[in-house]
Amino acid sequence: MSDSKLRILPLGGLGEVGKNMMLFEYDNEGLIVDAGIMFPENDMLGIDYIIPDFQYVVDQMAAGLTVHGIVITHGHEDHIGAIGHVLDYITVPVYATPLTAGLLEVKLRQAKHGNHPLHIVNAGDVIELGPFRVETFHVCHSIPDGIGLGINTPEGLVVHSSDFKFDHTPVDGWPPDFAKLAEFAQRGVLALLADSTNADREGWTPSETVIDKAFDEVFSQAQGRIIVATFASLISRIQQVATAAQRYGRKMAIAGYSMSEYIKVATRLGYLKLPPDLIVPVEQANKMAPGKVVIMATGTQGEPSAVLGRLAWGRHRQLEIMAGDTVIMSAHPIPGNEELVHRTVNKLIQRGAQVIYDPIAQVHVSGHARRDELKLLINLLRPKFFIPVHGELRHLTQHSLLAQELGIPAENIAVVENGTEIFLTADKLIVGERVPGGYVFVDGKGVGDVGPIVMHDREILARDGFLTVLVLIDAETGELCETPEIISRGFVFLRDAAEIIEMAQAVVANVVAEHKAGNLTTAIQDALSKTLYNETKRRPMIFAFVREVYGIAG
Amino acid sequence: MSDSKLRILPLGGLGEVGKNMMLFEYDNEGLIVDAGIMFPENDMLGIDYIIPDFQYVVDQMAAGLTVHGIVITHGHEDHIGAIGHVLDYITVPVYATPLTAGLLEVKLRQAKHGNHPLHIVNAGDVIELGPFRVETFHVCHSIPDGIGLGINTPEGLVVHSSDFKFDHTPVDGWPPDFAKLAEFAQRGVLALLADSTNADREGWTPSETVIDKAFDEVFSQAQGRIIVATFASLISRIQQVATAAQRYGRKMAIAGYSMSEYIKVATRLGYLKLPPDLIVPVEQANKMAPGKVVIMATGTQGEPSAVLGRLAWGRHRQLEIMAGDTVIMSAHPIPGNEELVHRTVNKLIQRGAQVIYDPIAQVHVSGHARRDELKLLINLLRPKFFIPVHGELRHLTQHSLLAQELGIPAENIAVVENGTEIFLTADKLIVGERVPGGYVFVDGKGVGDVGPIVMHDREILARDGFLTVLVLIDAETGELCETPEIISRGFVFLRDAAEIIEMAQAVVANVVAEHKAGNLTTAIQDALSKTLYNETKRRPMIFAFVREVYGIAG
Repeated sequence: MSDSKLRILPLGGLGEVGKNMMLFEYDNEGLIVDAGIMFPENDMLGIDYIIPDFQYVVDQMAAGLTVHGIVITHGHEDHIGAIGHVLDYITVPVYATPLTAGLLEVKLRQAKHGNHPLHIVNAGDVIELGPFRVETFHVCHSIPDGIGLGINTPEGLVVHSSDFKFDHTPVDGWPPDFAKLAEFAQRGVLALLADSTNADREGWTPSETVIDKAFDEVFSQAQGRIIVATFASLISRIQQVATAAQRYGRKMAIAGYSMSEYIKVATRLGYLKLPPDLIVPVEQANKMAPGKVVIMATGTQGEPSAVLGRLAWGRHRQLEIMAGDTVIMSAHPIPGNEELVHRTVNKLIQRGAQVIYDPIAQVHVSGHARRDELKLLINLLRPKFFIPVHGELRHLTQHSLLAQELGIPAENIAVVENGTEIFLTADKLIVGERVPGGYVFVDGKGVGDVGPIVMHDREILARDGFLTVLVLIDAETGELCETPEIISRGFVFLRDAAEIIEMAQAVVANVVAEHKAGNLTTAIQDALSKTLYNETKRRPMIFAFVREVYGIAG
Repeated sequence: MSDSKLRILPLGGLGEVGKNMMLFEYDNEGLIVDAGIMFPENDMLGIDYIIPDFQYVVDQMAAGLTVHGIVITHGHEDHIGAIGHVLDYITVPVYATPLTAGLLEVKLRQAKHGNHPLHIVNAGDVIELGPFRVETFHVCHSIPDGIGLGINTPEGLVVHSSDFKFDHTPVDGWPPDFAKLAEFAQRGVLALLADSTNADREGWTPSETVIDKAFDEVFSQAQGRIIVATFASLISRIQQVATAAQRYGRKMAIAGYSMSEYIKVATRLGYLKLPPDLIVPVEQANKMAPGKVVIMATGTQGEPSAVLGRLAWGRHRQLEIMAGDTVIMSAHPIPGNEELVHRTVNKLIQRGAQVIYDPIAQVHVSGHARRDELKLLINLLRPKFFIPVHGELRHLTQHSLLAQELGIPAENIAVVENGTEIFLTADKLIVGERVPGGYVFVDGKGVGDVGPIVMHDREILARDGFLTVLVLIDAETGELCETPEIISRGFVFLRDAAEIIEMAQAVVANVVAEHKAGNLTTAIQDALSKTLYNETKRRPMIFAFVREVYGIAG
């Protein structure tokens, strides 16, 4: 394909490029960065989650590729969630920072890989992986202990920012490692791969600490309980709530299993510092004066089964929204979740809560760099080649235009989609072929068994339902043995649709009576389909079981 | 219920309060404002649209209520779309401004109400409707010729803003009727009903004319074709594109039936002023130099069947995206449509287009007033009572807090949901009961036949599909006549699932062989359900047809 031996391959097909999994390869030796999942979009019916299709990597390994390790940049699901699936096929050591490793351990145990080698590295550490010398460096993001990677290759230094923002005043007091970036620049950067999530947003993403001000205002005014909903992994936000709670003499209760687990891991590893008497069980919080309580909860995306969703619909086992409650939505809706989030907010208000969300108050900020930060990163590193990653095509193109404004020639920039390989030499960037593969749906226990055909069937069923009919014909007389039985769901409400069912039965009887040649099953299905469409303008799936029998018993 | 004779009732159940239909009633005489539809949310599977349930009004009319007319405030679907359904049951005159009437005529013809009395009023006209003297006044919005209503009642003047923004420099040069508002204030306003859509947004919604600047920049730079996508009803935007096209020597082609229709009506009535030689047919535009063409298109919400969706997926009959095309998304995604809109943008980029959308450039502004405008409206009118409408609960509560900041006491404000009646006297506001009714799903020809049960079935089918099995048992031996036939969709991909199907058949055979007492059909369904869940962690709907027969023929 190319005379270059250095190949970069973002995997996954759908969605944000290079977000969930990337392969870096030099002369048949490789390393993998991240092993995450994607969440299904609204029209991916019934799907639990989506993993990158890494079969191509497995095939390459069978053909001689050596993968030396998997480096995980941070502990978000879209970077660690597929680790179990990956280790089922690619059994190589995993490298991660302490918090990320703490979260990975849980995943590995669940996936029956509890004994898999997991190497803990601290930001700043160097990992030697075959031809690659990987220098990790600390970045700020919406989970602590994230790293970017300076990947030294025989062709030059490739820097991968992973998800980041340039937060000068992060809650954990650990700013980005600008010194390392400057050092990279001094040594010369062959290529930069950078987070494009907010490449269409002007300015600089506000620091996490701006939220303190908004929290302060809410805590100083609220008379009743305060319920703060955020992502379970947003440890710094939990720290901010804890600080505010202590300042205003409130105790803190944690609602929700996943958040409790994150808090446990983060506290054990020192990423979360909670005063020993701050946390109280939910049962105890329920007995305290409302003005003395703050409750942390999950469910900011309107998930009906998370704590906030159950509170909104009055289905929580221990907690109930009361008049006077103040709910802070300390998160933004992820695109696609807006309807559910808004519905949840309306339901909470209906139950008597006051709900604070952005833009009413600045109770959340993004974890991703905006345009001014992206410009700074490029100008700090002055890379020869630029590869925007971690974004949809629309973000990558904006990021590419931004890089061009800073003087990087268009021909030195590669905007590609997942599955497209990029080759680099010290003075060339070549966009290669699309490799086979894409993404894989996970539905229940099934990994990859739900494909486009099943999905298409689910769409039809979701829109118009189905109808089946049992047609038993007397083998001797050729007449119906009984009125055809119809079972239908999702099409019409059967209790009110006697007329339509009788009409369908009459259609079947008529087809059987008139039928002379050809496939009777098809004839029945076609006739039903036509009649039902004319009557209802709907197109349910229609199936007939047709048998000739020698009489029915009973 | 109350000693007040003046009752205000927003109808519809779901969604934005008072948006689609309201009843104003005094002593058994009434008027209806608007007759619109709602669009289904993502989880309302298979639904075409939603209408307010106005059965309560019909019942009241049977019991003596006289409705004197329906006043339509503007021509958007959520205000006119249900007119046909309403006139099927409530045959009273309809009042609207010229453009709104022009759009209504089409609806009335389609609904076989072409001869229904439709009275054209001009903004500023007064409509006498029983005890109500309705003074219409011009408002600015994202469709021309919108009106608000000053409804003089025996208890006092009730002002209804309907959808509005205070645009000082609207494209059509027709600013809001501030003089009328001032006059209302002089006479004293009993109650104000005001648009709450942007009540959680600080500041003042930018004027429509700010878009000229963004268009100017795009038109001055684009080398290839320009494709502007916007709402078919956004006549002022079409006017702005026409003006820019003329300035930069481009011809304009219209793609999409609905937009062509809107343009026809708006041009005929003088709301759109197009130079006679500006418009060219799409076929002609296809033959012209790309730099000489601008194409207007629908599909800003990512609808796959609209023009932009078909262009994005390469399925348009006449047009194809070419490298060098610039697509302007001159609209914001309506909440719930974000995923589809982003996917469309990514697909257009994939095909070689550059895509401009907010926030990349200010190519769209909202048609609804923000907080500073809402404050101005309240302070212009100084109403005694305040009823925030046209918003979800979260918007209404923000609007209520804003009104309280301006000095309106909380007890003089009514935040209610659709279906809740409000009574007013010269010095009292009373929130009454919830009247029966809500909303009605329209699906194909069915109006209201799809309710919660069918919807729930569609959810299950969408998630896990269904499986039916035909079980024919020999009446004499009690053994299966044949291997049970299984039909399944949306559950597993049958061609790859032979193992699961064979397992299901074995389960059926086993149940039949072991069965001693009770309902065999239920026993088969339960056993299948259990086995399939264990194997797949999915729960398809399962149905068995079971018959005892005296042998099968053939």
